[in-house]
Amino acid sequence: MTTIRCVVEYDGTNFCGLQYQPALRSVAGVLEKALSGLLLEDIKITAAGRTDAGVHASGQVISFKTASTFPIDRLPIAINTVLPSDLSLREAAIVDDRFSARFSARERTYIYLLWHQPLRRALASNYTHHVYGPLDLEPMREGARDLIGEHDFLSFCGALPDTGPTIRELRAIAIERKGDIVRVVVRGDGFLHRMVRITVGTLIEMGQGRRDPHSSGAILAARDRRKAGYTAPASGLYLAGVKYDDFDSFCEPPMGWQ
Amino acid sequence: MTTIRCVVEYDGTNFCGLQYQPALRSVAGVLEKALSGLLLEDIKITAAGRTDAGVHASGQVISFKTASTFPIDRLPIAINTVLPSDLSLREAAIVDDRFSARFSARERTYIYLLWHQPLRRALASNYTHHVYGPLDLEPMREGARDLIGEHDFLSFCGALPDTGPTIRELRAIAIERKGDIVRVVVRGDGFLHRMVRITVGTLIEMGQGRRDPHSSGAILAARDRRKAGYTAPASGLYLAGVKYDDFDSFCEPPMGWQ
Repeated sequence: MTTIRCVVEYDGTNFCGLQYQPALRSVAGVLEKALSGLLLEDIKITAAGRTDAGVHASGQVISFKTASTFPIDRLPIAINTVLPSDLSLREAAIVDDRFSARFSARERTYIYLLWHQPLRRALASNYTHHVYGPLDLEPMREGARDLIGEHDFLSFCGALPDTGPTIRELRAIAIERKGDIVRVVVRGDGFLHRMVRITVGTLIEMGQGRRDPHSSGAILAARDRRKAGYTAPASGLYLAGVKYDDFDSFCEPPMGWQ
Repeated sequence: MTTIRCVVEYDGTNFCGLQYQPALRSVAGVLEKALSGLLLEDIKITAAGRTDAGVHASGQVISFKTASTFPIDRLPIAINTVLPSDLSLREAAIVDDRFSARFSARERTYIYLLWHQPLRRALASNYTHHVYGPLDLEPMREGARDLIGEHDFLSFCGALPDTGPTIRELRAIAIERKGDIVRVVVRGDGFLHRMVRITVGTLIEMGQGRRDPHSSGAILAARDRRKAGYTAPASGLYLAGVKYDDFDSFCEPPMGWQ
């Protein structure tokens, strides 16, 4: 058996999310079916990030084990001919047997794109979050600064996890504007369910003057989801990259920021 | 009755095209239904360009007549709340009663986006045309030069028109590269059915060395669709702008070229 690592891109609009769900169209389900057909084996994948319905990925990483002798350097081009248009493989490599796309990951980078102008644009609807009215980036950056570090992010967690701690290390939040697009880049060791979207929603409220930019510490301390802001929609979110000891899958989403 | 001119944007992926077709989801059908509901009248629109299924628009222009006194400056924001996410209005204005989005148009600009890299990208599939292997822009530009001017474009026409001449004035074709994206901008007084897509397909074959870049004159002279190249897919095409005597709706598509 060899262990394979792949970088995967998808347009999340028409997927129920990464995780397999019976009777629904999941990224894992479509990918496992295509890989199983090509490698003539029952393939089960492990993914670095469990993205929700509508969330995109330009640098998702998956791993799986196979006994197949299919030439791995030709896997992306071969599998891309059978995958649907909204799912593609960028690269594939044989890695150490102890490698897991999920557990070997050292850092995850998410990108959130806001389209900031009075009227929404049809061609950007599924790929950005439309925000209108005044939006000041300075309070957003101020609010972001106090979130950096190792904290209990329970207030920024969408659904209570069955088990496990809610402490995560948020390493960086960069907020930049280019024309009508505001791009929020969030890096951390790992993220709770909907943590990036709730973080972005909270920062947007600060940028709109609807929330004190110095309240981040108090929101964290409350350990109460109701103290944080709204959950920004899935359409603006991209899993852009996953870092390992010797590999980084980062890739900029193709929309609006070249 | 007043005459209204609107600029419309749409993601063509899930539309059967601009023109109304019973039982199918057309841009005109969805737009007329929304406008009729808002203005409480039966609205029929005229469009500058009859785009096919899958073709996008960042600067489509429509016009219609209404007796409604709805404040026109608030029409875009009002109608955008009822339109589906893949269709939006950018602006609306009262114009001269003789104005027709179609017949008053002086020039149309189409943009065609090629994604030129070895592997296709899921996030660009519906918004570009994936081209791989060598692609040299110089022969494409050479082939384009001989198409400029007033010619009979019957060889570049997808389906025979019921009536009417097949002579059009092609005013400019600009071909530029930025990273992995090749952008073809085509301007002319008007275009036959699939003319832009067949033109781009023919130029791609020249760029790939599969067709003589000096053959454009001969293709035109043949007046035979079979002499031209393949029809490039709808996904890469955008109606980007329409020019009138005193108005230009041009708007760059948001994908990959900012």
